[in-house]
Amino acid sequence: MDNFTFFNPTKVEFGKNKEQAIGQYLAEHGIKKVLLTYGSERIKRDGLYAVVSKSLGDKGIQFVECGGIVSNPVLSKVREGIALARSQQVEAVLSVGGGSVLDSSKAIATGVRYDGDVWDLFLGKARIEGALPVFDILTLAATGSEMNSGAVVTNEATREKFAIQSVHTFPKVSIVNPALMRTISRDYLVYSAADIIAHSIEGYFTATVQPKIQSRLVESVITTVMETTETLLADPNDYNARAEFAWAATLALNGIIYAGTSGFGYPNHMIEHSLSALFNVPHGAGLSVVMPAWMKWYHSRNLPQFERFAQQIFGLKTAEEGIAALEQWFDKIGTPTRLSQLGITATELPATLDNLQGNAQWFGLAETYTRDVLADILKRAL
Amino acid sequence: MDNFTFFNPTKVEFGKNKEQAIGQYLAEHGIKKVLLTYGSERIKRDGLYAVVSKSLGDKGIQFVECGGIVSNPVLSKVREGIALARSQQVEAVLSVGGGSVLDSSKAIATGVRYDGDVWDLFLGKARIEGALPVFDILTLAATGSEMNSGAVVTNEATREKFAIQSVHTFPKVSIVNPALMRTISRDYLVYSAADIIAHSIEGYFTATVQPKIQSRLVESVITTVMETTETLLADPNDYNARAEFAWAATLALNGIIYAGTSGFGYPNHMIEHSLSALFNVPHGAGLSVVMPAWMKWYHSRNLPQFERFAQQIFGLKTAEEGIAALEQWFDKIGTPTRLSQLGITATELPATLDNLQGNAQWFGLAETYTRDVLADILKRAL
Repeated sequence: MDNFTFFNPTKVEFGKNKEQAIGQYLAEHGIKKVLLTYGSERIKRDGLYAVVSKSLGDKGIQFVECGGIVSNPVLSKVREGIALARSQQVEAVLSVGGGSVLDSSKAIATGVRYDGDVWDLFLGKARIEGALPVFDILTLAATGSEMNSGAVVTNEATREKFAIQSVHTFPKVSIVNPALMRTISRDYLVYSAADIIAHSIEGYFTATVQPKIQSRLVESVITTVMETTETLLADPNDYNARAEFAWAATLALNGIIYAGTSGFGYPNHMIEHSLSALFNVPHGAGLSVVMPAWMKWYHSRNLPQFERFAQQIFGLKTAEEGIAALEQWFDKIGTPTRLSQLGITATELPATLDNLQGNAQWFGLAETYTRDVLADILKRAL
Repeated sequence: MDNFTFFNPTKVEFGKNKEQAIGQYLAEHGIKKVLLTYGSERIKRDGLYAVVSKSLGDKGIQFVECGGIVSNPVLSKVREGIALARSQQVEAVLSVGGGSVLDSSKAIATGVRYDGDVWDLFLGKARIEGALPVFDILTLAATGSEMNSGAVVTNEATREKFAIQSVHTFPKVSIVNPALMRTISRDYLVYSAADIIAHSIEGYFTATVQPKIQSRLVESVITTVMETTETLLADPNDYNARAEFAWAATLALNGIIYAGTSGFGYPNHMIEHSLSALFNVPHGAGLSVVMPAWMKWYHSRNLPQFERFAQQIFGLKTAEEGIAALEQWFDKIGTPTRLSQLGITATELPATLDNLQGNAQWFGLAETYTRDVLADILKRAL
């Protein structure tokens, strides 16, 4: 077990009706004016917007709207949000949506407190020295952003999908009400399942130091995601399954299951970020394509852990059996396992490999993941 | 899954040599004078005291000593610490020791900020409105106090062993260096194992709402504790086993495995608190006696979960088989499973039952745990 620091100051308010108190949570932090970020107008149709505006109004909190944030959120929108936050002199950002809205909100919150262009922070050209406080009401459980300090944004001009992370970007309060996730589409449910599994396995398979207790926690998360996904596909109204799925998503990336783990990378995310930066595929759909292909290429480098995975998750024996079972499970729930299902063919491989070179640098994985290796992995996914 | 709030602002600094930076951590919080609490003079003999005083000195931090805190820490010592902290005008408390020293430190930290007698806070006669910041260097992993806000103290005059809990009593920084635990005696290692298992199972077996994901996390903790205890009994110098054991102890009571769980109580702790308040037995030793007896009395009330326990922890089938296996495992590692091993005989039962009446009230379990029920459980443990 390697040395580590665990620090996660986010307060998670989890459960039914928690969003009704959002005004109270902001008031406790002395907020009087907030930037309200969201994606589509769906939150207005389904009543959540009304709940939020009433709760804010009851506490005398003003808000300015920044809607229209898209999946695979883009830098131009973040810049727009920063300008709005500055001109309106808001004191905080309130994200109402999924991981894309929340990540954009974290980026806006840091950008407001930085004099240069916010993309500098993603490129590591400048340090994050502060941020507006971020609050959120989560409407889709997948990215884990509600209880960590990371934010992923795509620079649509350069086709770079990079991230920031800072002690200043932990949300102050995250509201996770599984009932708000009842209307998530079948597609986004299964993409989210793939995303959570991807967060769980990057360290599990690639770490040079991987404590057994942490492997057990990872397996608990994956088993829960698989079980609850199947329950929710059969009955989207199963609140308890929705809740366990959401808590698994939070646990997958709040630092607990990565404590004491070291020497790991995020190769699956590295590859997927190029797919979504270039082809705007849903992040989870890209991951369910990348993972089996990556595993087939990688497994001989950590055979005992892949055998452990096969046994603990599927009751099988060999690494190959475990990988095949995961791929079959992705097929069964209906998340893609082939690039062709994302509309990506061999013709697109050279451009993808070009984009991946910058990504591999950014992820610190360029030495292992050469163009040849990446071509090998991508060809397995065609 | 029930509604919950998860909030845990403690920074855990885990790993080798972390204690060398204690001065730095205090300095980051602006501390210039601290009350240094500890138990025996062992920390002076084994060099830890020298490391701490050098680290504090390097940052110009003064300290006042409050040593001699005992296991099952007592109220008189807490009062002494409060008086000292006040007269010396310290700004924080630094606990160097195990759970008893840390719990005493939390009690001192709250008592300093309360005008009345500190025991009022344990009796619920007054609310905890603030506390000095608490820091700690943990030398024994068992109680989980390093990453929660609880503190248990015994009023030796009234023979009451009660607890406080407050948002103000989370340690600011907890240093958990498993290497510092290398010299723990065989007895205290196995008592600690019993304590961690007890923390894990109270909710697991008694909750009216127990999410499956949380059961899986509990099982991960218990499996790890059992495995690493056996490793450490064979080789006390196995750093990795020491580290996984310590992290399991932290996870068992930092709120993660209890999130979304509800309707549970702490009956095993309730019973044990009377044993250690009356007979000053080591807390973990008391728990390993109480648990099998309690399980034999309780299991029919939650049969599926006891069958799950038997299967997941021991690969067995029935509730009875699982309970017997746990008792045998306690016997195997050498932690007591009978009151007689603690020197408690049938003669002592009436006095124990008398003491338990107040405890059952305090724990909110008096309705279920009548004198007859408690007599039944204790007789099974004779």
